[in-house]
Amino acid sequence: MSVVGDDSIEVTGVATLDEAGPGDVAFLANVKYTDRLATTKAGAVCVADGVTAERLNLLVSKDPYFTFCRVVVELVGHRKHPFVGVHPLAFVDPTATVGPGTTIYPFAFVGPRATVGANCILYPGACVYDECVLGDRVILHANTVIGLDGFGYATHGGVHHKIPQVGNVIVESDVEFGSCSTAQRATLGSTVLGTGTKLGDVVVIGHGCKIGQHNLLISQVGISGSTSTGKYVTMAGQVGVTGHLKIGSNIRVGAQSGVMDDLVDNVDVLGSPAVDMKEARKIYVATFKLPELVKRVRELEREVARLKDAIVSVSKEENAISDQRPID
Amino acid sequence: MSVVGDDSIEVTGVATLDEAGPGDVAFLANVKYTDRLATTKAGAVCVADGVTAERLNLLVSKDPYFTFCRVVVELVGHRKHPFVGVHPLAFVDPTATVGPGTTIYPFAFVGPRATVGANCILYPGACVYDECVLGDRVILHANTVIGLDGFGYATHGGVHHKIPQVGNVIVESDVEFGSCSTAQRATLGSTVLGTGTKLGDVVVIGHGCKIGQHNLLISQVGISGSTSTGKYVTMAGQVGVTGHLKIGSNIRVGAQSGVMDDLVDNVDVLGSPAVDMKEARKIYVATFKLPELVKRVRELEREVARLKDAIVSVSKEENAISDQRPID
Amino acid sequence: MSVVGDDSIEVTGVATLDEAGPGDVAFLANVKYTDRLATTKAGAVCVADGVTAERLNLLVSKDPYFTFCRVVVELVGHRKHPFVGVHPLAFVDPTATVGPGTTIYPFAFVGPRATVGANCILYPGACVYDECVLGDRVILHANTVIGLDGFGYATHGGVHHKIPQVGNVIVESDVEFGSCSTAQRATLGSTVLGTGTKLGDVVVIGHGCKIGQHNLLISQVGISGSTSTGKYVTMAGQVGVTGHLKIGSNIRVGAQSGVMDDLVDNVDVLGSPAVDMKEARKIYVATFKLPELVKRVRELEREVARLKDAIVSVSKEENAISDQRPID
Repeated sequence: MSVVGDDSIEVTGVATLDEAGPGDVAFLANVKYTDRLATTKAGAVCVADGVTAERLNLLVSKDPYFTFCRVVVELVGHRKHPFVGVHPLAFVDPTATVGPGTTIYPFAFVGPRATVGANCILYPGACVYDECVLGDRVILHANTVIGLDGFGYATHGGVHHKIPQVGNVIVESDVEFGSCSTAQRATLGSTVLGTGTKLGDVVVIGHGCKIGQHNLLISQVGISGSTSTGKYVTMAGQVGVTGHLKIGSNIRVGAQSGVMDDLVDNVDVLGSPAVDMKEARKIYVATFKLPELVKRVRELEREVARLKDAIVSVSKEENAISDQRPID
Repeated sequence: MSVVGDDSIEVTGVATLDEAGPGDVAFLANVKYTDRLATTKAGAVCVADGVTAERLNLLVSKDPYFTFCRVVVELVGHRKHPFVGVHPLAFVDPTATVGPGTTIYPFAFVGPRATVGANCILYPGACVYDECVLGDRVILHANTVIGLDGFGYATHGGVHHKIPQVGNVIVESDVEFGSCSTAQRATLGSTVLGTGTKLGDVVVIGHGCKIGQHNLLISQVGISGSTSTGKYVTMAGQVGVTGHLKIGSNIRVGAQSGVMDDLVDNVDVLGSPAVDMKEARKIYVATFKLPELVKRVRELEREVARLKDAIVSVSKEENAISDQRPID
Repeated sequence: MSVVGDDSIEVTGVATLDEAGPGDVAFLANVKYTDRLATTKAGAVCVADGVTAERLNLLVSKDPYFTFCRVVVELVGHRKHPFVGVHPLAFVDPTATVGPGTTIYPFAFVGPRATVGANCILYPGACVYDECVLGDRVILHANTVIGLDGFGYATHGGVHHKIPQVGNVIVESDVEFGSCSTAQRATLGSTVLGTGTKLGDVVVIGHGCKIGQHNLLISQVGISGSTSTGKYVTMAGQVGVTGHLKIGSNIRVGAQSGVMDDLVDNVDVLGSPAVDMKEARKIYVATFKLPELVKRVRELEREVARLKDAIVSVSKEENAISDQRPID
C-alpha cells in the first residue's frame, strides 16, 4: 500500500464516498462509482492501483477493499460487548464447556456436553444442541441453531418413523453464521463446517454435510444432507444443492441455482439445474428469444410447405416438357 | 359503504362464508367464490359494488376486503396483550430507550443504545441489536432479528476478513416483520425500512438496503446488500434481488423471480432473470412447447434436405433437357 | 427380517459402513454404495432382500432403512432430555395447558390459552402463540414459531391495513418441525398441520393452510395462504406453492419447483411453473439444446432462402426451356 498526497492528515472515522468528511476514510472498490471521486469530501480514499485523483489523498493498493477493511478495524474496531463470559440470562448446561474470552448473550443456549471454544460470540437466541462442538472465534448471530436433529425418517407404510440422530455438528474455528440459520446434526458421525467459512441468514445445512474451509454461503442457501464441498466455494443467495453430492474447490455458484450433480474443481455454474456459467448465460439469452423462435419455426414450416408445392409443380411441368422431348 | 337489507340486526363476530352464523359478518373478496353466497348463513356479508344476493344483508363497498378489515377491527380488535411494557423475562439494555405503550415479550432482546418507539410489539425472541432504531407501532414477530452484522468480508488470499459493520438499521413507523426474518445493519450508514412496509417470514434484508414506504415483501424474499426500492413495491414469495440495484416505485415482482437489473417505475416483472411479466408469460408458454419445437426443427431439417435433393435432381434433369436443346 | 450369518454376536452401537467396527450395526440403503460392503468392518449390516456378502452378518429385509431405524431406536434410543416438564427459564402463560411427559426447554414460550399435548418437546426459543393447539408427541425444534399473525392486510389507498388474525394454528399429533420454521395463524378458523407431517428448517406455512397427514415438507419450502394438501405429499427443498390451491394426495414435488395450479392425486411434478415431472425433464433437456437450436433455425432460414432462390432460377430456366418448345 502506498499513500499518494498528504500523509500527515488525521483521520478518525470511516464513511461512504458520499457521506465522508475531511476526518473520514472512504473507499472505491468498484470502478462503476469512479465519478464520485470528483465530489467526495473524504480526508482519504482507498483506491486500486492506477486510480488517480489529483485533489484527494489516496491509499493506493492492489486490493482497496481489503485496505479499507484494515482501516475500519484500526479506526473503529469490532463491536465492544457490554460483558465477557456467560450472561446470567443465558443458559449453559453444567456439562457443557465454554472457552475463555467467549461472550454468550441473554437467551442463548448451550446444551449438554456441548463445547464452545475461546473468543466466540453467541448472540441472543443462538442455540447449540447437546454434544456439538464450536472451535475458536466462532460467531453465531441471533437465533441461529446448531445441531438440531437431521431431517431423517424411515418411511414405512406411509408413516415417517423418526431415526434418532446420533451424530453431532462440528463448527471449526473462525466460522461465522448469520441469523436464523441452521446446521443439522448428522444421523451418524458429524456434520462439519470448515475453518473460516462464513454463512449468511436463514442458510440451511443438512445432516451429515461436510462443508470445506473458507466457503461463502450467502443468505437463504440450502444444502441437502451428506453433501460435501471443497475449499473456497462461494454460493450466492437462494442456491439449493441436492444431497449426497461432491462439490469440489474454487467454485462459484450463481444466485438461485439448483446444483444437482457433482462439481469438479475450478468451475463456475449457474441455473437450475446448474450448468457451466457461460453455457447457462447462452441458454438465458436463447430463452428470451423463444417466443420469437416459435414464430420463426412456424414461418419456416409454411415456407418449406410452399417450396415443396413449388418443386412439385416445377417437377410436373418439367415432366410435361420431358414428355415432349423428341424421341431419340 | 352502503347497507342493503336489514341494518338493525346485531352482529358480534366474523367468520368465513362457509362457517358464519346469523351473528357473524363474512366477506366475499374474490368473485370466484360468488356461489357461496347462496348457501352462507352469515348475518351480513361485505361485498363489492354491483354484487346482489336477495336473501342476504350486504355491506356494499368498492373495496369489500377493506370494509371487512374495518369490521374485524371494530368487532374483534387487535390482540390484547397480557401486559404492557417490558416483561421481566425480556432483556432491555440499560442504555436502550423504549417508548410508551410498547410491549416487549419474554426472551425479546433490545441491545445497547437501541431505540424502540411507542406502541411497538416485540414478540418472544425478537432481537434488536445495538444502535438500531424502531419507529412507532413497529411489530416484530417472534425470532425476527434487526441489526445483525451485514455479510461483509474482504477476501484476501482466499481468507474472508470480517469488516466491522459500523452502521445500523432504521425501521420506520408502522413496519411489521413476520417471524425469523432478518435485517442486516449497514457497513456504513443505515439500512432503512420505510414507513408502512410489511414483511413476511424468513425474509432477508441485506446490509445497506433502503427499502421504501408501503412495500409488501412476502415470505422468503431475499434482497442483497445496498439495493433500494421505491414506494408501493410488492415482491411475492421467494423472490431474490441482487445487490446494488435501484428498484423503482409501483412495481410487482412475481413469485420466485430473480431480479438482476434496475427496474423503472410502474412495471410488473417475473422470471429469473426477471423480465416484463407479459414477456415472461410468453416465454413460459414457449418453454412448454420446447420439446415439440426441437422435434419440429429436426423434421424441418430433414424436409429441407429432401427438398435440396429434389431441386438438385430437378435441376439435373432440366440440365439434361437443356443439353438436348437444338443448338441455336 | 431375517439374519444371515452369525446371530449370536453382540452389537452395541450404530455407524456408517466406513466407520463401523465389530460392535456396530451399519446399513446399505442405496445400491450405489454396494462396493463398501467389501471393506466395512461392521458387526452387522442392514441390507435389502437379495443383497449378499459372504464375509458379513446381514440383517436382510425389504426395507433396510426402516430396519436400521428400528436398530438405532433399540440400541441408542431417542435423545434423553436432562429434565421433564417446564424448565424454570421457559415461559408458559398461566392460562395455557401443558400435557404430561412434555419437555419445554429454556426460552421456549407458550402463550395465553394455548394447549400443548402430552410427550411433546419444545426446544429453546420455540414459540407457541396464544390460542394455538399442539397434539401429542409434537416436536418443535429451536426457534420455530407457531401461530404468529398471518400475512393479512387490506390495501387501501396504497396503505396496508392490518387485519386482526382471529384464527389459530392446530398442530396435530406426531408432527415435527425443524428450526426457524413458521406456521401463521388463520385470519378466521384454523391453520392445520395433519397428523404425522414432518417439516424441515425455515419452512413457511401461510395463514389458513390445511396441510394433510404424513406430508414431508423439506427445508425452505413455502406454502402460501389457504392452500390445502392431501395425504402423503412430499415437497423437496425450496419448493414454493401459491395460495388458495388444492393439492391432492400421493404427490411429489421436485426441488425448487413453483406450484401454481391445483394438483390431482398421484402425480409427480417439477419446475416453475411445475408440470408433470417427465414433461419437465424433457423441457430441461430441450432447454440445454436451446442455443444450438437457435443456430439451427438460423441455418434453416438461410438454407430455405437458398432453396427459394434455386427454385426460382430452376423455374425461370424451365420457363426459358418452355419458351423454346416448338409451338404445338
